[in-house]
This record gives sequence, C-alpha cells and structure tokens, in this order.
Amino acid sequence: MWNRNVETFLGCDGPFEESRIVLFGAPFDSTTSYRPGTRFASRTMRAESYGLETYSPYQDLDLEDAAVFDGGDLELSFGNTEKALADIEARARDILAAGRLPFLIGGEHLVTLPALRAAHEKYPDLAVVHFDAHTDLREEYLDARLSHATVLRRIWDVVGDGRIHQFGIRSGERAEWRWAAEGHTDLHRFGFQGLDEVLSGLRAAGRPVYLTIDLDVLDPSCFPGTGTPEAGGVTFAALLSAALRVIARTHVVACDLVELSPPLDPSGISTATALKLLREMLLALERPHIGNRGHEA
Amino acid sequence: MWNRNVETFLGCDGPFEESRIVLFGAPFDSTTSYRPGTRFASRTMRAESYGLETYSPYQDLDLEDAAVFDGGDLELSFGNTEKALADIEARARDILAAGRLPFLIGGEHLVTLPALRAAHEKYPDLAVVHFDAHTDLREEYLDARLSHATVLRRIWDVVGDGRIHQFGIRSGERAEWRWAAEGHTDLHRFGFQGLDEVLSGLRAAGRPVYLTIDLDVLDPSCFPGTGTPEAGGVTFAALLSAALRVIARTHVVACDLVELSPPLDPSGISTATALKLLREMLLALERPHIGNRGHEA
Amino acid sequence: MWNRNVETFLGCDGPFEESRIVLFGAPFDSTTSYRPGTRFASRTMRAESYGLETYSPYQDLDLEDAAVFDGGDLELSFGNTEKALADIEARARDILAAGRLPFLIGGEHLVTLPALRAAHEKYPDLAVVHFDAHTDLREEYLDARLSHATVLRRIWDVVGDGRIHQFGIRSGERAEWRWAAEGHTDLHRFGFQGLDEVLSGLRAAGRPVYLTIDLDVLDPSCFPGTGTPEAGGVTFAALLSAALRVIARTHVVACDLVELSPPLDPSGISTATALKLLREMLLALERPHIGNRGHEA
Amino acid sequence: MWNRNVETFLGCDGPFEESRIVLFGAPFDSTTSYRPGTRFASRTMRAESYGLETYSPYQDLDLEDAAVFDGGDLELSFGNTEKALADIEARARDILAAGRLPFLIGGEHLVTLPALRAAHEKYPDLAVVHFDAHTDLREEYLDARLSHATVLRRIWDVVGDGRIHQFGIRSGERAEWRWAAEGHTDLHRFGFQGLDEVLSGLRAAGRPVYLTIDLDVLDPSCFPGTGTPEAGGVTFAALLSAALRVIARTHVVACDLVELSPPLDPSGISTATALKLLREMLLALERPHIGNRGHEA
Amino acid sequence: MWNRNVETFLGCDGPFEESRIVLFGAPFDSTTSYRPGTRFASRTMRAESYGLETYSPYQDLDLEDAAVFDGGDLELSFGNTEKALADIEARARDILAAGRLPFLIGGEHLVTLPALRAAHEKYPDLAVVHFDAHTDLREEYLDARLSHATVLRRIWDVVGDGRIHQFGIRSGERAEWRWAAEGHTDLHRFGFQGLDEVLSGLRAAGRPVYLTIDLDVLDPSCFPGTGTPEAGGVTFAALLSAALRVIARTHVVACDLVELSPPLDPSGISTATALKLLREMLLALERPHIGNRGHEA
Amino acid sequence: MWNRNVETFLGCDGPFEESRIVLFGAPFDSTTSYRPGTRFASRTMRAESYGLETYSPYQDLDLEDAAVFDGGDLELSFGNTEKALADIEARARDILAAGRLPFLIGGEHLVTLPALRAAHEKYPDLAVVHFDAHTDLREEYLDARLSHATVLRRIWDVVGDGRIHQFGIRSGERAEWRWAAEGHTDLHRFGFQGLDEVLSGLRAAGRPVYLTIDLDVLDPSCFPGTGTPEAGGVTFAALLSAALRVIARTHVVACDLVELSPPLDPSGISTATALKLLREMLLALERPHIGNRGHEA
Repeated sequence: MWNRNVETFLGCDGPFEESRIVLFGAPFDSTTSYRPGTRFASRTMRAESYGLETYSPYQDLDLEDAAVFDGGDLELSFGNTEKALADIEARARDILAAGRLPFLIGGEHLVTLPALRAAHEKYPDLAVVHFDAHTDLREEYLDARLSHATVLRRIWDVVGDGRIHQFGIRSGERAEWRWAAEGHTDLHRFGFQGLDEVLSGLRAAGRPVYLTIDLDVLDPSCFPGTGTPEAGGVTFAALLSAALRVIARTHVVACDLVELSPPLDPSGISTATALKLLREMLLALERPHIGNRGHEA
Repeated sequence: MWNRNVETFLGCDGPFEESRIVLFGAPFDSTTSYRPGTRFASRTMRAESYGLETYSPYQDLDLEDAAVFDGGDLELSFGNTEKALADIEARARDILAAGRLPFLIGGEHLVTLPALRAAHEKYPDLAVVHFDAHTDLREEYLDARLSHATVLRRIWDVVGDGRIHQFGIRSGERAEWRWAAEGHTDLHRFGFQGLDEVLSGLRAAGRPVYLTIDLDVLDPSCFPGTGTPEAGGVTFAALLSAALRVIARTHVVACDLVELSPPLDPSGISTATALKLLREMLLALERPHIGNRGHEA
Repeated sequence: MWNRNVETFLGCDGPFEESRIVLFGAPFDSTTSYRPGTRFASRTMRAESYGLETYSPYQDLDLEDAAVFDGGDLELSFGNTEKALADIEARARDILAAGRLPFLIGGEHLVTLPALRAAHEKYPDLAVVHFDAHTDLREEYLDARLSHATVLRRIWDVVGDGRIHQFGIRSGERAEWRWAAEGHTDLHRFGFQGLDEVLSGLRAAGRPVYLTIDLDVLDPSCFPGTGTPEAGGVTFAALLSAALRVIARTHVVACDLVELSPPLDPSGISTATALKLLREMLLALERPHIGNRGHEA
Repeated sequence: MWNRNVETFLGCDGPFEESRIVLFGAPFDSTTSYRPGTRFASRTMRAESYGLETYSPYQDLDLEDAAVFDGGDLELSFGNTEKALADIEARARDILAAGRLPFLIGGEHLVTLPALRAAHEKYPDLAVVHFDAHTDLREEYLDARLSHATVLRRIWDVVGDGRIHQFGIRSGERAEWRWAAEGHTDLHRFGFQGLDEVLSGLRAAGRPVYLTIDLDVLDPSCFPGTGTPEAGGVTFAALLSAALRVIARTHVVACDLVELSPPLDPSGISTATALKLLREMLLALERPHIGNRGHEA
Repeated sequence: MWNRNVETFLGCDGPFEESRIVLFGAPFDSTTSYRPGTRFASRTMRAESYGLETYSPYQDLDLEDAAVFDGGDLELSFGNTEKALADIEARARDILAAGRLPFLIGGEHLVTLPALRAAHEKYPDLAVVHFDAHTDLREEYLDARLSHATVLRRIWDVVGDGRIHQFGIRSGERAEWRWAAEGHTDLHRFGFQGLDEVLSGLRAAGRPVYLTIDLDVLDPSCFPGTGTPEAGGVTFAALLSAALRVIARTHVVACDLVELSPPLDPSGISTATALKLLREMLLALERPHIGNRGHEA
Repeated sequence: MWNRNVETFLGCDGPFEESRIVLFGAPFDSTTSYRPGTRFASRTMRAESYGLETYSPYQDLDLEDAAVFDGGDLELSFGNTEKALADIEARARDILAAGRLPFLIGGEHLVTLPALRAAHEKYPDLAVVHFDAHTDLREEYLDARLSHATVLRRIWDVVGDGRIHQFGIRSGERAEWRWAAEGHTDLHRFGFQGLDEVLSGLRAAGRPVYLTIDLDVLDPSCFPGTGTPEAGGVTFAALLSAALRVIARTHVVACDLVELSPPLDPSGISTATALKLLREMLLALERPHIGNRGHEA
C-alpha cells in the first residue's frame, strides 16, 4: 500500500532480473514536419493497456506467462536531436549488454536509428525488416540529415546494400524509389508479397533481424492516429500475420513500433490496435519459453 | 401545431396499438469500467436517424410499411444497479405481456440481462444468439457480479449450458475461454463460422431466440465509437448478413443493440452504422407482414 | 522573397498559360440539411496537400511533370443559392472556353450542377458518370428544387434519359429507386459492377464524359469526414481503380470531387484520402502528355 | 407508458392551452458565411436542459410554477431562405394571434427578422433592444440582402430610424458604424452603458419591445460556442442583469436567443450558459404571474 | 535504470515514511447522472503535472521542500457503489491512522463521503468547509441515496446541523435551498462572502476541518472540464485565496478536489487549473514546516 | 481570374514596396517539450482572419488604410534548430535592411531569439518588453540551450542586464526567479503593474524596443489554445491596453506574437483573440501614418 505508484504496460510488471524482453518508450517527435503527437504514444499505450486482456486467442498464450520488463520512458531532449538519439542508443546498448531484447515504443520513426545502431554493434550481420507506408529513404529533408523522412537512409549508412527489406511501401519521392530500385534496398510495394521468400533467405543465412514497424503501414481506416496517413494500406490481420511470421521464422534481436500519434485519434482505436499488436509480438517472442504452458488447452 | 414535441426514431412514429415491435432505450453505463458513454446511444441514435432513409435497397422494404412503436428512453438510476435492472426488466415484461417484441437499445451490455430475464420468463426454452468481440463470461469483475464483463455469465445462470451461441469473439481472459470450452457456451471465434448450422439446429428445435448484438463485434475501423475497441473484427456486410439470417431462419422474440458510445466517435459513423443495422433488423422482423407490399418492384 | 503568399495544391503551381487542367474550389454547403462543413474542403485539402508526395507509385507518374493550374476558391454567396450557382457556372464556362479541363472541388454535391451545365453547353452529347452512396434524384427536398439531394435530378433535366450512369448507390427514398428503374438513369447498386460495359459503350459512342465523384461512395471506415455517411461502401482501392478506368477509357472533359467535410474527421484521413484520389486522377488525365517521361524507370 | 416520446425543455412541459409563453426552435444557418452549426442549438439545448435545475437562486422562482409551452423545432428549408423565413414568420404570427409570447431559439441571427415582422404587424410601434458583438447593419453581404450580417439593417427597413437600441457592439465594418452614427440606430459600444436610460425612455413611451440577444455578445471565454467569437465581450453576470432589467422595466412582447453553435464547444459550457439565461428570462417574464408564490421564502 | 516505471504527481515523489501528506486518487464516477469522465481526473492530473513548476510565486514556496507522498489511484468497483466507498474509507482511515493528512483526488463528489467518514471517526467534532456550485443536499436522486447529488446530505447525516459551511452555491432544487435555510447547513450563495467570519469561528472553537472543493465552483470559463458547468462562478484568484485562507486560519485535517472531468476539456486548461490549486494547497499545508526555507528570498 | 491563389492576412494584401510593416510566420515548435502545435499558428490565423473586420472600434482605424505586407511563412527545418533559427534571423535582417518593421508570428517562443538578434544588430541599444506567463530564463532545458524555456536567457546573452522588462510572469523555477531578482531582468509578477513607469523610462532614454508577446500571458479562460496554460492570467482588455501603450509611448522597431497552438482549442477563440490583438497592434503601429484619415468620424 505504501509503495510509490508504479505504472507499466498490462502484464509487463515483472522485475528486470527475470525478464527476457525490455520495453522502453522514446517519446520524441522533434523532427516531425507535419502533425506532431507521437511523443504521447508510449504514455498513452501504457494507460490504455488496461482495456486489453493478457490472453491471446490468436496464439493461445498469456502475457502472465511472459517475462517482460517495462523500463518506462526516456526523458529526451526536444530541440537537441543528437543528444536525444544518443540517449536512446545508450539505453538500447545497455539492454542488449544485459542479454535482453530491446523493444522500443516510439516516437517518430527517427528513434529507430539509435536502437538499430546499438543492435548492429552487437550483431554486425544484422538485417532489417521494415514495414511502412513510406520509403523514408531521403538523403536530407528540410535541411536535416536526421529526420523521420531519412531514417531508413541513415540505417542504410549503417548496414549497407541489400540488408533492408521494405514491405507495404506506397509513398515516397520518385528519387527514393529509383534509388531503392538500384539495389540499395529490397522494396516491396503496397503489401507483404514476397515476405515468405525473404524470411526463408534470412533464416537460411542465419541473420539476426531488427524488425521495425511504422504503424502507418496499416490502412488509415483501422489506424487513423498517425501523422501522415496513406490510403490503401494493409489490414490488421495482414500486419499481424506478417509480424508473427517474421518472429517465428527468423532470429529477431530487437524491434520497435513507431508513429502512433494518439491525439489525432479521439476514438482511441489506433492505440488499441497498437497495443494488440504489441501483445501478440511479445507473446510470439516469448513462445519458445512459454509455449508448453500456453498450449495445454 | 400545438402538440408537444414528439421525437422518435425515423419511421417509428406509429401508435402503440398498431405496433408489433416496441423500441426502447436503456441509457445506462454505470458499471462500464473503462470509457463510459453508451448512456448517450439511444438519444443520439434518435436524433441522428433523420440522416437515414426509411427505404432499404438491401431488402427492398420500407419502414413506412412497418409497425414499430418508439417508447422512448427509461429514466434509470445511476449508482443503484439493481434498481436500474429492475426497471428495464419491468418494461420488457410489459412489452412482452402486451404481445409485442421488445427491441432494446443500450447502454452497456449489462442491460441485456433484465430484458433476457423477461423473455426467459415468457419463453422458458429460450436460446441466446450473441454477437460480440468479448466473451463477457467472468464470474465477477472489479468486485461486482453485475457488470458489463459478466453479463453472459449471468445470462448463463438463467438459461444454463448449451443455450448460448457466441460469435465474433476475439477477447477475454484465459479462464473465460477455458470455461466456455468446458461446454457451458457454444463459442465461435473471430467471425460467423458455424452460424448457419446453429440456426438450423435452433429452427429444428423450434427454440425462441433472444438476439443480442454488442456492436463492438464490428471492426473498429467501421465502428470506432465503443468503449473497448478490439482490432480484427467483422465487416458491416458480414454482421448485416448474419443478423438478417438469424431473423429469417429462427423465431426471434426479443433483441437488442448495445455498446454504441457516441462521444467516442466525433465523425458519427458509428451511430450511422448502428442506425442502418437497426433499420435492416426492424425490416427483417416485419418482412412477414409487409413483404408482399415491399416486393412489388 | 517579397512576393505575396501563394498557396496552391501540392505540385499545381504552374502558370495558367501552360496548364491543361484548372482546379478550382467551390466552398458552398448552404443547402446541406444535416451536418454542414464541406465549405472547408478545398481550403483544407490545399493546406494538407503538403503531407502528400507528388510521385505516384500506382501509376509511376509525377505531378511535377503535369500541367495543372490551381485557380483558388470562388467566393460564393451563402443564402443566395442561385447567385452562387451562377458564379460557379461562369467560372467553369471560362475554363472550358480557354480550352482547359475544369476540375471542381466541392462543397456539397449541388455545385456539380452549374459545372455540368457549362460542360453540357460545350458538349451537348455529354454523358455523366456518377459515383455516390446516394441517388440524389428527388424532385424537391425540404421545399427546395436546388439541393444536394436533388442534384442528379436537376442534371437529368439537362441531359435527359439514359445519359446518367450511377455507381455505388446504396441509399435513397423508395420513389427515387423506382423512378430510376423506369429508365431515367442507369443505376448500379452498392459497387462498380457493370462499369466496364458502360465505359465500353461510352467509348464506342464517342461521348464526352463528366465524371462526378461524391466521396461518400467510399466506406465510412476510410472516409468518415462526410455529412451523411452510409455503411457498406466501396474501398479506396475499388474507387481508385474505377476512377482511373473512366479516365483511361473515355473522353473525360470535366470532373469533380465533392462532399468532403473536414471538420467531421479530426484525424484527417478523409482529407488525405481525397487528396490521393485527386493526385491520381490528375496524373491519369495528364498521362497522355507525360507518360513517356514518367515511364522511363 | 405507451405514449410517444415527448421531449421538451426542462420544466416547459405544460399544455399549450395553459401557457403564456411559447418556445420554438428555428434550426437555420444557411447564410452563415464562416462556421455553421447554429442549426443544432435548439435540439442540443433541449437535450442538455436536464443538467439544469428548474429553480433559480437569482430570482427565487421556479420553472415549475411557470406556464411555458415548448412547441418544438420548425422543419426549415435549407437552400431556400425566403421559404424558411416565411415559415418562421407564420409560426410567430400564430403564437401572437393566440395571445402568447413567442420565444424563438435560433439558428443564426437572420431568423430574428421574420419573428420581428410578425411582432411588428401586431405592435406597429415596436422598439428593438439588441444585444450583440456585431453591428449586423450591412446593406448586403456576399451578394445576399438576407443574411446574418444584414439582419439588423433589414429590421431597420421594418421599424425605421431610432427604434433599434444596440448594446455590446464591438465589431463591424467602418461603413456600418458610420451609418449607425447618422442616427439610424442607437448604438452603444462594448457593454451596457446607457441601458437604464434607454429602458426608462421606452417605458415612458409605453413602447412594446422585441428583445433579441445574439449570444456572441458574451465574452468568448464564457461562450466559446459561436461562429464568430469576438474578444472583449461582456460577462454572464452583466448580460443576465441587462436582460432581466429589460424584462422588468419594459413591455417585452417577443424575444429570442440566437447564434449558439454547439459543435464548436465540446465542453458544453456555451449550451449550459444559454440554458441558464433562458431559464432566467422565462422566469422574469413569468414573475408577474408567479411572483407571489415564488417569494415565500 | 532497471527500476519499474514510477509515476507520481510532480514533486510528490518522496517515500511514505518522510511524508506528512498522502495524495490518493479515487477514480469513480458511477453515479454521475449526466456526463461521466471524472474517473480520469487523477490519472490525467498526474500525467499533466509535468507541465507545471514546483515553485509557487504566490507563496514563494517550492514543492521540492514539501513532504508529500503520492499513493497512486485506488482500483474501484464500477457498479458496486457500496464496495467502492468502503475501499476509499479504508484507505483514508489507514492514512489518518499513520498520522498523515489524506488528500483525495476525485472522481465525482460522492467520493468525499467515505473520506469524511474516516476523518469524522478520528475527529468527532469535525466541521466541513464546502466550495461548490451545487447544494448536493437531496435526500435521494434517481432512486439512489448514495449519489453525487446527495453527498452533502449524507455528510450531514454524519456531522449534523450547523457543521457544514457551503460557499459558492448557485444551483439546486428549491427544496434543497429551503432545507438548508432551516438551519441544517450554513449556505452562502454565489461566492465567498462570509468566509472570514466562518473561519474565525472555526478557529475560535478549535474545530478540525475537512475542506472539500468541488471544482465546478469555478466559473465555466476557466474550468470547462466538469460534468455540470454552471455559469456565474468564481474566479481562480478568488478560489485560490479562499482555499489558502481556510488552510492558514483553521486546522485542516483532510481535504479533497473533486469533479474534474478531463475528457470534456480538450484544451487541458481545467486540468492545469486543478493542478495549480493542488500545488498551492499542498504548499500552504506544508508552510509551517518549510516556511523558513521558502521565505529566504 | 487566372492569377495564382494568393492568401494573406485580412487586409494585409498590399505590395511589399508600399509597406511599412512586414508580417511573416515562423511555424516552428521543435523544442516544445510538452504539447506541440504552435507550428500551425500562422497558417490558421491567416485562414481564420476572414472572420474578422478590418475596422477597429477601439482605435477608430481601418486596416484598409494601413500599409502591411504579408510575406507568408518560412519553410523551416524540423530537427535542425540552428538552421531554423538562422533562416528566421536572415528573414528579419532582410526586412530591417529594407527599412520595414518585422512582425513575426510564431511558433514557439524560441523563434523570438533570431528576430531579436537581427533587431539588436541594427539597434544596439535595444530594450525588450516581454509579456508572458513564464520566466523563460533557464540556462538549459532538457539538455538544450536553445529552447522555448531558455529563450529570454539567450536574449539576455545578447542584450545584457537591465534591458529586459518582463510583465505578467506567474510561473518559473525558483532559480529563475532568484536569478532575475539579482538584477538581470526587470521582472513584474502577475500583471502590468509598473508598465507605465518602464515605458516612460524607455521613452526618456530614447531606446528602440522589441516587443515580444507570449500569448499565454492571457488567462486560459480567454486563451485556452496554448501548450502550457497558466491559471490566473491577464484579461484581453488588459493585454490590449498594455500592448497599445507600449506602441504609443515607445519606439517599437520589431515585435512578435508567439505560442498560439490552434489544435488545442477546437472552438477557435484563441485564434480569434490573437487576430484581434494583431489587428490592433498593426493599427497602432500605423496610426502615425493613417491617423488623420482614420479619425475623421
């Protein structure tokens, strides 16, 4: 009764020592050029998670059997992008050094860059699986090299040609599409066509995978709460299936969910959708450890 | 000109004496644990119904040929759940006693319990067809046995094993799923698979049916205005088809639409969707009486 | 630097002299009986267009290669419907007289009438392709012959029997459906079934086409921002495909997008969807002129 | 129990025959040039009135002792201004002919014109007391002579020089101020300075009074829900006092409250404020009849 | 770094052992008859408190010098009012038993009752100072004796005649005003007239005081986020001064802030105002202990 | 007719050559730590300005007689604060070099720094008059020296001790108040006490003045649309009077209005209030040139 007020994601209230996954929030949207608000994502998800159940009928697994630690949100600098990114990178590096899987909740997509850097440092042959509506491959955007619109280009600076597999893409400048088509990234338009082949290849090569999901890959009808909605996206069922397949078939060592902007969706369905995806991804990551208990039904 | 201001659902303005169906609202959401607002559903639906047409191109029938009486909303106690439920039960019992079909507009799902009790009193072999995203099968929720999260369990207290057919379910505690799987209810996951078989069985057995529709069975994309949205729901077309099949193939003696929460959806599409479903259900219920006129086209 | 502040749709900033298409806004919703707001559509679309890209991965074309002039919004009379319509008609006539294609952004659907009149004056054998949720075929509505609910009937006054092809229709009074079925219009229910046959016929006959798109033909899930949402609509992909087929296969001489009401959709997905459709339609209209450049990839 | 659903303003549920005041709504905002929404005022006020009490601690009177009939809302034409105004005028004339006082709830300010005409027909020496932020004295606005921005000029057409007393005015075109200053109207800037003198004069002259209150006379802080808010307005206490003084000291034969636009104020304080003013005005109008009962405390 | 995520009110992050005041939230609004939402008050205040400063220029004191423990929110039953109230009473009793001052954040006003009971148990000669727009003196409301509209009557059941001092009251049923006037409570209309005399009397009598502030005592202009706004309220400056005088001049042993409903105020000014009042009250309560440090400037 | 779409603030549509004042927008809020949105201020103000009149009854002057050029908005880098500030500084310097007065519309308060630098370069003895709720005097905030919370400290770096006169201040860290009290700035708490003395001193010294108005100096009741609202602010009348006195009595060489955040105020009263203040300030600045025309009434 006299403990301080602890707030965690539903079912993620275990101690760090017993965890295999560490959730942490990066409430940063300083480079968002259009409609900001993703800074509120992790805080809102945490509060709204109590409308969710810990049990998944999709996987017949329960978060109560999972070992996830919620490390809370970083307090990041607004107006000093380099410092904010350095803080995120340090946190991800610490989690990896402690042998846990870092699961980052954005923030804008730029927060992926430092987490990816930390993962790449530990896993130099890292591949990136990227679900998004946008290419994010610009060299520079509004005079900034560090921007939500350049983040995959900056990641390419780290991992190089052929290591980035993009799915769901339906928006970008012509120059970005051309650049990707030159072989720099493996860009799949509109949906998840080709995903299974990519996953087989990654598995065969034994590559560790960073899975980054910009939630605007979803159709705006089921995910209106994002800064740059793009008509013609994928359904929740398609995204859920794709994410679970990545986790089941490859060695995911770090992942993130970015670009939820709660203030843009007063109905709250976007937050609820992000939370359900989070639960399913956590359960899939934990399945090897809890599967024998979860499947008894 | 000098009559008092009468407000009814569009096309439901006939006198009680000539009616076969009686609409009534139960604006109650006192046990809603998360985001309240369903208390405004019936009032908002009535006001917004004037954006709808009385004619259905789906069924080629017109509400102007139907005999529906709108009995307005009950004035219910907030903070005295037992009293509120008793008032709803009394109203449903009166409607049934007068030989009319009660069509209840919620409110939270708990309002189904008293209407079901009244129907069960008249039809002791009553079966329940239940469309919902949630199991609603807890024994107790937040120290309350009477709660939106326990309502189907309380209904089971009334009707017993095997009488409840649940469709569209995609959320619940593990214990609820296990309890259902023990044979207490007939639970169908995610959609309407198996509905036709169930309906054939009910028809063969000659069972009267209570049809209760928690509108959050719909996907949040087309129905964002509800307190606990669950990604991965059914489409409007699927729900409409399912509801019309229940009505066409079984003997529906009472029904309800619950869990619309208008304040959560400033666009109003949830209310408009609920109203269209209401119109179609009323027309399907009235088809045996007006079909010969409606089909002349 | 010291020029006055020019605001145009993204990528539509060329001079009039070099244009083939002229965009103009008609911010009028004076006859809207239910929830007004379409008066803000063109202004909001212009401002939000900077969240879009000029490049289309659907058509591999770029607005930077197109020749579109944005003529801004008309300043229209509220409360004097006849005067407002006369101003729209004059503007459309001037654009046509200058050899450009007028592309009108509503406003409520009534704004189509004067633009259609101007087009019919120049092309007396004009056909109308009409995408909408509503019949809009009433003879009179709330004592007004000029109304958003009568606009297709008024257009029928101009073009006569058999010249109006309606798709996606799922709402209307029984009398309207009956009147259409008497052969006055070619009404297709719910979706785009039969569109290809209609287009082949129009092409064979060499008819010029006015394409009018009431955006409420879309499902409310992807287009909540409209005054009279109707559940059960078409998907964005279906509408995009249908619109591009009309443009590719017939001789479109004028077109419009109407009934976006931004204040009803705080998430902005409706505006973003309308903008993407606009971009794709402009590119399709310009394809014959820019195709050889756009396809070089 | 089996009566149709009657909805009235709180405490205004008596029969017409026993009434002295008749409330009626004119949900019309067709000429509103900027942000529409006043069409929802009377409906919203009626629904929200149940958050109010019938008793006034300001006057120690209770609506339960008053004789007010709520005649509901007119169904008005949108897009046919002349017809809509004719319908309002007919209703006001009927109420006056029946010996009742018409109390009109707008809608935009233009609805005052027909009600004033009806009152002027019965009381040819009618004076107008006008509380507003805006002069509303234009000869024409956006090509329309009938407009919310011209309504006091049109009323001047009816009543002539010196009969209009304006208070609270703080916005208008220079030409309007100059025209007023030529002696056409008695314009008081910013607040209610001079009101007592005006009321004494009207009382001495025995003039019947039409009291029209554009609620945007209030400061936007306490009344944000209006289409054209103007900083620097009067407080609720000042407006209440002014309105009660007009009623107490002159012979008010008709009145109105206009320009509440509920959709612009999600908090609902504007509607609650309008309702409290309505209650107090009704009680002040009824005081001569109920005062002996109300004052017993 | 690896501690669980602790969230407290700004500056209230000390341990229980060193505290003199214990904040706790009672997120309950189950009996709210009109517009619910106060259940979100404590959670929202906690999150938004980081927009505030710990330092007060009003009192030249800083929360960093105060000893306040934030005990988080109770998890209360919805739909079981008696159980919820019992849980609040138990928590308040525990805090008092530990020698701390309980500071309750509502929730609807009914949550005051159990906290008052706990305080009365410890301090049988307790007086109540009550700031509110509403009398809250009904014997029963909508069939419930336990309701936000009856809470002061229930408190009177506990403390008896002459122990309740009400200020700011401007709304209630006639019967409530009459009942108060019979000497049951000391009711002051509209503002804080008479407060100083009351405080002198309480001080002279050495009475311990429960201070309950229904924030709707504030004018709706500065506090729109509440379920039943009442025009004509007090300013923030007046309320702040009144609250600080109560604390400075009497022996306050428990207090609360109730009826903030964040969802009704999207601008957030109501939450910010409640937080500033909370900070000032905490500092005033702590002044005897930190004053010598705070005043050094 | 065939000109491109020009959008300016109401009445500010003259050519640059004939102007004395140049308005420009700096839509930047990248360092805003709490609730962003000021980036939309200038755009929204421009669009909404058409609800305003050009004529001021306060000053009996008309914008149609003023010589103001609207230079539109800068396109600024998000995520590269230094570059954004450099662009603002360059624009302000160009305007000053052309002999015009720069009038900047923010954006967050940090945008004042570069405009002030440009003014200080031209007027080395510049004084700053600062209206604000917040001290903004931190040395660093969230690891950033360039921040909305440090802007006055950075300005002090430029102008030095005794040159900054702050009014309306009611929030800040204790250390900031102490630092100011050491004589670094001339800080006036809560309101405009002492303003006239300060203005007399500035006039006597012949100092050029930069007037920067953070609109959150206003009470949240009349200005809810700002990121960090602070209860207990000044009224619109007080602010208007203060701003006009600064302009009338000193030599203002540059000014700005900052921190309007339109998305936080759906009613739009904050934008309307900012616009009215802008109109009055422009007229006051232009009075020496147009006074003889404006005062003819």
